[in-house]
Amino acid sequence: MSEQRVRDLSERDLLARILAVLGSSSRALVGPGDDAAVLAVPGGRVVATTDTLVHGPDFRLAWTGGYDLGFKAAAVNLADVAAMGARPTALLVALAVPDDLPVPFVDELAAGFRDACERLAPGCAVEGGDLTVSETLTVAVTALGVLDDVEPVRRSGARPGDTVAMAGTLGAAARGLEILFRRFRDAAGVPEPVDPAALSGAERDDVRAQLRPEPPVAAGPIAARAGATAMMDVSDGLLLDATRLAEASGVTLALTGPMDAAALTGGEDHALLATFPPGPLPDGFREIGLVVERGTHAVTLDGEAPRGRGGWDPYRDWDAGRG
Amino acid sequence: MSEQRVRDLSERDLLARILAVLGSSSRALVGPGDDAAVLAVPGGRVVATTDTLVHGPDFRLAWTGGYDLGFKAAAVNLADVAAMGARPTALLVALAVPDDLPVPFVDELAAGFRDACERLAPGCAVEGGDLTVSETLTVAVTALGVLDDVEPVRRSGARPGDTVAMAGTLGAAARGLEILFRRFRDAAGVPEPVDPAALSGAERDDVRAQLRPEPPVAAGPIAARAGATAMMDVSDGLLLDATRLAEASGVTLALTGPMDAAALTGGEDHALLATFPPGPLPDGFREIGLVVERGTHAVTLDGEAPRGRGGWDPYRDWDAGRG
Repeated sequence: MSEQRVRDLSERDLLARILAVLGSSSRALVGPGDDAAVLAVPGGRVVATTDTLVHGPDFRLAWTGGYDLGFKAAAVNLADVAAMGARPTALLVALAVPDDLPVPFVDELAAGFRDACERLAPGCAVEGGDLTVSETLTVAVTALGVLDDVEPVRRSGARPGDTVAMAGTLGAAARGLEILFRRFRDAAGVPEPVDPAALSGAERDDVRAQLRPEPPVAAGPIAARAGATAMMDVSDGLLLDATRLAEASGVTLALTGPMDAAALTGGEDHALLATFPPGPLPDGFREIGLVVERGTHAVTLDGEAPRGRGGWDPYRDWDAGRG
Repeated sequence: MSEQRVRDLSERDLLARILAVLGSSSRALVGPGDDAAVLAVPGGRVVATTDTLVHGPDFRLAWTGGYDLGFKAAAVNLADVAAMGARPTALLVALAVPDDLPVPFVDELAAGFRDACERLAPGCAVEGGDLTVSETLTVAVTALGVLDDVEPVRRSGARPGDTVAMAGTLGAAARGLEILFRRFRDAAGVPEPVDPAALSGAERDDVRAQLRPEPPVAAGPIAARAGATAMMDVSDGLLLDATRLAEASGVTLALTGPMDAAALTGGEDHALLATFPPGPLPDGFREIGLVVERGTHAVTLDGEAPRGRGGWDPYRDWDAGRG
């Protein structure tokens, strides 16, 4: 018996399978099934962001199954909502899939979306989407969120005297990617499935951080309530993203070490970088430096200009081939 | 001098070009440039939809330039918002482009988005997006909208005695696609550029309806204020979409002819199909039938079951090759 492929099902049947996996988690006024979803937005403001995972530059099928792909596509978008101080409420998922993709992959993808919402952003669910065929597997996600009686936390509000703080891990996703590239490719460089037995516990954690990241989504609204003056999610490495926040705010971020190279320049962890007025930090955040008047450099590490490359570039660090 | 390609620019520079074309049309509380956009939503409800155009199944580069692609990607999403009775307020655009795509194509794409908003939904603008590379040119759009003191108009509210009405054109986009397939492909079936001089005025209109559709977006909120009981946009042909509305409402739509085959089964016009309580129709809508108690068929035409294929399928009608 050959495996069922996407082309063997009608769009309607494939959609029905996806909705069955997602379950009745919708909290929308109008959920999936009409021309558009209608969401209640307490406070009359909505936070909206979109981010896409494309086969090749963003993931390889030898390493990433449907479940991890759905989980990561949800997680990276939830992190962007959280970075505004908002609470995610809905995802819209535009799926473009090759017609020879096995149908169970799509079921797993839907399960990954469902579980990422449950685990990282309870109350958030997939409320709409679109399904089309493409030669390149592409998952484009839009995340919506609400601000619960707080102002949006932008990149531009850091002030001299503020504490620089982080929530979440830094460097694990980059170490995980390095393990994948170094140890799970054949002689020709083609990705091969990951053998968990060949990994130590710490290595497994790093690979998992790369393939199924769990950014600190709940810490976003907590930071906003605690008075965070600026915030962003760290997707391209701490040095590069800290520079962006410093430039937007017109200040220098004086970071304090020690920090290893993966933490400084490795991307895709989706930790939250925030600045707070002096005083105790909210739960989940740890101090990593101080905001000072703008000096020669946008970011310093232990008082010096950081050395090494600036940050993460998925088109360089992932290399655009297929696998 | 060789043409500049996407791979010759940094993501930052490409994004700067796009934002320059889009201009300062943002009306968001926080527009492009932060982790997410923040939109004011009068009334505390937001309408959200997503739809994707993929090279191959949805468009061919020999026929569709950047401008038309942006315009169409905006238009089809604006129509879905309108079909809920809502007024579009923001687009999020996730763009996945081959790295050898000429840079001017991206500029034109942004101009198409800008002009579609200005023309079809004044006040709506691109408020966020994502840019990535892909082997397959893909434009995934999310449209957001607001309900101005009206309830969302769903597919399920049609009642016996209601008038069935349409706003916008039916059949033109399908005739346009037939012209493209019949007359602008070479002997091997590969698409060739359209020569406008080879077309009559009516044919030019049909091709334009296919490549750069102008759905009646403003008619959506007008219908909602006029008390429309059900509404949807006709993207897959009148017969198929009327059947969907009839099934959702548990009624039969008794349509009145004459209607040509392209109007009944041709897709991609994005006209609005709506039902209204008996009485005068709002501006822009014309009567095409009556809602009756559910009979044997979900839809009848002049009292009989319609013959012919059920509707539009982009994977059959567009054929998934490249061009």
